[in-house]
Amino acid sequence: MSNPPEAPARPGDPIAAIRTPALVVDLDLFEANVARMAAHADRLGVALRAHAKTHKSADIGRAQVAAGAVGLCCQKLSEAEALVDEGLDDILIANQVVGAARIERLVALSRRARIAVCVDHPGQVAALVAAGAEIEVLVELDCGSNRCGTTPEGAVALARMIEDAPGLRFGGLQSYYGRAQHIYDPDERARALEVSIALTARVRDAIRAEGIACDRVTGAGTGTFGIEGASGVYTEIQAGSYVFMDADYNRVRDGNGAPGGFTQSLYVLATVISTGPGRAVCDAGLKASSPDSGLPQVASPEGITLRGLSDEHGTLDDPEARLGLDDRVWLIPGHCDPTVNLHDWYVGIRGGAVETVWPVTARGRLY
Amino acid sequence: MSNPPEAPARPGDPIAAIRTPALVVDLDLFEANVARMAAHADRLGVALRAHAKTHKSADIGRAQVAAGAVGLCCQKLSEAEALVDEGLDDILIANQVVGAARIERLVALSRRARIAVCVDHPGQVAALVAAGAEIEVLVELDCGSNRCGTTPEGAVALARMIEDAPGLRFGGLQSYYGRAQHIYDPDERARALEVSIALTARVRDAIRAEGIACDRVTGAGTGTFGIEGASGVYTEIQAGSYVFMDADYNRVRDGNGAPGGFTQSLYVLATVISTGPGRAVCDAGLKASSPDSGLPQVASPEGITLRGLSDEHGTLDDPEARLGLDDRVWLIPGHCDPTVNLHDWYVGIRGGAVETVWPVTARGRLY
Repeated sequence: MSNPPEAPARPGDPIAAIRTPALVVDLDLFEANVARMAAHADRLGVALRAHAKTHKSADIGRAQVAAGAVGLCCQKLSEAEALVDEGLDDILIANQVVGAARIERLVALSRRARIAVCVDHPGQVAALVAAGAEIEVLVELDCGSNRCGTTPEGAVALARMIEDAPGLRFGGLQSYYGRAQHIYDPDERARALEVSIALTARVRDAIRAEGIACDRVTGAGTGTFGIEGASGVYTEIQAGSYVFMDADYNRVRDGNGAPGGFTQSLYVLATVISTGPGRAVCDAGLKASSPDSGLPQVASPEGITLRGLSDEHGTLDDPEARLGLDDRVWLIPGHCDPTVNLHDWYVGIRGGAVETVWPVTARGRLY
Repeated sequence: MSNPPEAPARPGDPIAAIRTPALVVDLDLFEANVARMAAHADRLGVALRAHAKTHKSADIGRAQVAAGAVGLCCQKLSEAEALVDEGLDDILIANQVVGAARIERLVALSRRARIAVCVDHPGQVAALVAAGAEIEVLVELDCGSNRCGTTPEGAVALARMIEDAPGLRFGGLQSYYGRAQHIYDPDERARALEVSIALTARVRDAIRAEGIACDRVTGAGTGTFGIEGASGVYTEIQAGSYVFMDADYNRVRDGNGAPGGFTQSLYVLATVISTGPGRAVCDAGLKASSPDSGLPQVASPEGITLRGLSDEHGTLDDPEARLGLDDRVWLIPGHCDPTVNLHDWYVGIRGGAVETVWPVTARGRLY
């Protein structure tokens, strides 16, 4: 087995002592984001089931629950296993779990914690029954992303199948519009959601018309929770990225600012290892910051922009030659979720020093 | 500390038992690639110093050395530390190592193995001297990538500075043209290399004109080693990706085929978890296969293409509805190096079964 890296800093260290590249959390801003989403959920009258796929961290999950979240979502069974091992005890696996070996693990996990899972195909329900699962099962509806999720007719049929299956409890409808999260224009985003919310309400009502209770409708993310939360249709929101934000979510507009008023709390801290004419090169590349949603942005120092990422290098435009060897560069990740999964540790800072380090509990739990 | 995932299979398992998503190596094809590059190096009369940033694996590094490689390259000090811990004992850190804490670690490592390092700035040489390093130091020349590396004049001055520094031994010139690796057209690639090789030769000669021995010129990668290796200028080639290949390197042409005749030996094995009209969704997304150089390609089954990756999902076009739940999909990574770093284990297969599992020894060693 590989030896996971030791923590890149110790509590009490000055920021200059953090080994780079490192994932750094500004704790004041992070805590404000956690509290702000809890307040949004209160105001909207919906439950917050924070998505742990963003942070993969037991420490952060506990902070969300302490602030009022009813539990967590995970995207992978193995993430849920890692978090249950750390004492988190109420997790919706907001995804399909397929295959006999995985279902066996799911059944075992459901005996240790309150676990729910999504289905979008009768075969998944049959497999749960065959494994003797006693578990809460939600039906996932495809409300526009054209990824996972069943059709409206399929959703009603699956709800009936779950309701009639021994051991299974129908836990409601999951309707997550992933594609809408990243529509930058607020009016365009609202129009897309109008369609998905109406569809979701129709399917919920069709399930109820079958005499099946459907008290829970779960979905929504950081880009859309305000609209779904106020819709009267959704009872639970699954946002995750709000704890950190990223360069892409900072491009999503909600009135005059980022959605929900969240602020950037996560950085990849890098060190300059080479300088040349008009450029500097730092030690954070593709293996330290995922490029899938655009390049990271340079938060500090001013006047520096990122030209590109290669495997182990970030090449910076530095027209005024501000950067020297061993200088630090603060990068805002392009996309927080896959960037977090590249790291083994968070370094939490406050007041100019390291306050804590947290393991990325479920790093690499892809299965 | 996070708990690294356990291996996704055991030796002797059938392929159907591999937990997904998993990094799978076809051992016959991998071994053929290792032998083929050793033969290329013999034929060209150059040393092979295989780049371990691709595979981050002690097992694979040992296989390369057993086939004739003189040693390995690493891109990060922490990679080299992890491989020295596993008994690899001749490593060039083909990159700049900056900062007092890192140089202290470098000095400690150089007492345990034959370690060399690159510089491109007088400050790095001064820092090595100040730390009392006794180490081999190469000068990195920027031969066209506009990333790390110094100017021709800077290279001569640095060689002189190293030659005169107590404790340091001048180890030659590193001249790596990263950008040229991925020029798909062979003629265009050859023209780019003509310029970089001529520059490299001039700088080598200018160093020699100062009365400094410059017996080693190291560089080249999987896309270019044939030209640099035949140039009479390079004495050592640093290719890495050839052991696996990837979708991007398979687009690079060398006559009628991929450069050097290497064949794809690495796959991300995924499982179908959802099906819908015209589509299927598998369990390998951005966290299982890096998208930086284009999407993964579907190697098998036929008739299936990848529509896109999201964090935990790969959405597949399946117009003929060939795929069902729990079916396996074999993906060729878009870019092998950052994809390997997402995984903790390789699963080595031969003859339809799992033969071995190897840890990704230096996974997450970014520092």
